[in-house]
Amino acid sequence: MKLGFIGLGIMGAPMAGHLLAGGHEVFAFSRSGVPAGVVAQGAYACASPAEVAQKADIIFSMVPDTSHVADVLFGDKGIAQGLSAGKTVVDMSSISPIATKQFAAKINAFGCDYLDAPVSGGEVGAKAASLTIMVGGSQVTFNRVQPLFALMGKNITLIGDNGSGQTCKVANQIIVALNIEAVGEALLFAAKAGADPAKVRQALMGGLATSRILELHGERMIKRTFTPGFRIELHQKDLNLALEGAKAMGISLPNTANTQQLMSSCMAHGGAGWDHSGLVRALEIAANFQISQTPAA
Amino acid sequence: MKLGFIGLGIMGAPMAGHLLAGGHEVFAFSRSGVPAGVVAQGAYACASPAEVAQKADIIFSMVPDTSHVADVLFGDKGIAQGLSAGKTVVDMSSISPIATKQFAAKINAFGCDYLDAPVSGGEVGAKAASLTIMVGGSQVTFNRVQPLFALMGKNITLIGDNGSGQTCKVANQIIVALNIEAVGEALLFAAKAGADPAKVRQALMGGLATSRILELHGERMIKRTFTPGFRIELHQKDLNLALEGAKAMGISLPNTANTQQLMSSCMAHGGAGWDHSGLVRALEIAANFQISQTPAA
Repeated sequence: MKLGFIGLGIMGAPMAGHLLAGGHEVFAFSRSGVPAGVVAQGAYACASPAEVAQKADIIFSMVPDTSHVADVLFGDKGIAQGLSAGKTVVDMSSISPIATKQFAAKINAFGCDYLDAPVSGGEVGAKAASLTIMVGGSQVTFNRVQPLFALMGKNITLIGDNGSGQTCKVANQIIVALNIEAVGEALLFAAKAGADPAKVRQALMGGLATSRILELHGERMIKRTFTPGFRIELHQKDLNLALEGAKAMGISLPNTANTQQLMSSCMAHGGAGWDHSGLVRALEIAANFQISQTPAA
Repeated sequence: MKLGFIGLGIMGAPMAGHLLAGGHEVFAFSRSGVPAGVVAQGAYACASPAEVAQKADIIFSMVPDTSHVADVLFGDKGIAQGLSAGKTVVDMSSISPIATKQFAAKINAFGCDYLDAPVSGGEVGAKAASLTIMVGGSQVTFNRVQPLFALMGKNITLIGDNGSGQTCKVANQIIVALNIEAVGEALLFAAKAGADPAKVRQALMGGLATSRILELHGERMIKRTFTPGFRIELHQKDLNLALEGAKAMGISLPNTANTQQLMSSCMAHGGAGWDHSGLVRALEIAANFQISQTPAA
């Protein structure tokens, strides 16, 4: 098929590579230029999102934030300027569910279909084609794009109408952040009380406190490996989407709000680029106590 | 061996039963009388904790709260009045780590050993002899009691000195409560935004948001099955231990504090006896929105 891919960063480049490896033509655009590796795999470098939309039938985007998606879709030489009826736009960025509904309606007005399809699994999942993909849109459009999603990911779920994919991603980011914070509070409590946090983590694995976060991020907190992984500043962006949405919908997310504030504290201490397991540092700084020694270099 | 067991409630009765089934003599006391089933299994009903301590070499206790342990140990006709040097006291209740250190020192002064060995796994784990047991005390004493723990549980860990078992249990209860609250916030956000919470939960299983709580308690929130399980009033007691400890140690546990307050809101709405997954009700009540319909009776 003739596919488009806009945004070829850490995530987008390997994802586009999987589409190429699947035997598809890929028309590509990236603000900072299409990476040589992707061109070497056979991608055709376009001059603008509009050119991508003219040449491809299904156009994927994978960019950092809501404003970037708005720009790629409706900015100067954006996708909208190259669209014709019958094409499909698939935004795989993690952005606002509310804005997504508006974007979908505007794309639908061109006689085109829209899917929101954010992912989790990070750079590792993008490279391994093992991403979790959470999709919002119609069943018919989902069915048409599903074989392409299957080239990039494994656990692929149609959640509901447009916006539902982004909503599901925000729900994911709420749980991940709050589970990290929970492990941080528990290990801080234990360590300050004199217990070995590594033994506490080990004892809790397998019981009701078991989580992927206790396993992975608990270990990072104990071993003090705060190299990303997933950066705190990006996770804070996702919690901001949760809190903006909560405000708009009239619901209260008290622990999400607290945790977003703790991320601000991390950033005040130079932690914008720490892995999100570094959230424990905000608790440690407040307590003037560190749960575990920094390992010798 | 000659064992003692004090506190034969929902947890204690099956635990004492496993010790009897393991071929040990069990001298038993329970404030409300030794259950007929435990006597039928061969337990000898004693008139007081003091009598249990006179007749047994290793005395287990499994009672609701710190004040009950203090009473069983040092109250009128308590364990201390029947102790002689060389005996071992093993408290399997979930109580204050700080009080536990004091209790252990007072028992040690009789020439006796002390272990704190709280459990997780609930009534199901107690009956199936699959409890997780988190132990504080000396290695020598742990080694002596370990074969008896193995009759009652599976994942048995010596965490550190006296108090460390209770500290680990508090850490467990922090993570469990905060993970429940996280799933509640995420499903509330998703449902209010119009996504099906059951599909969201399904999409998140297997990814970074995976936890035993998302699996079990997430399902209970969606299916509205708030029959305990583990009662909110008991979990709130455990979070109070966390917050008292945090205050004493000079550390801040912001999400534990928030979550304890949400449990108070549940109790204000008649939820003391709800399963702890009912914590989502506090978020729902604040939002005047329910994530899922109550199933037809």
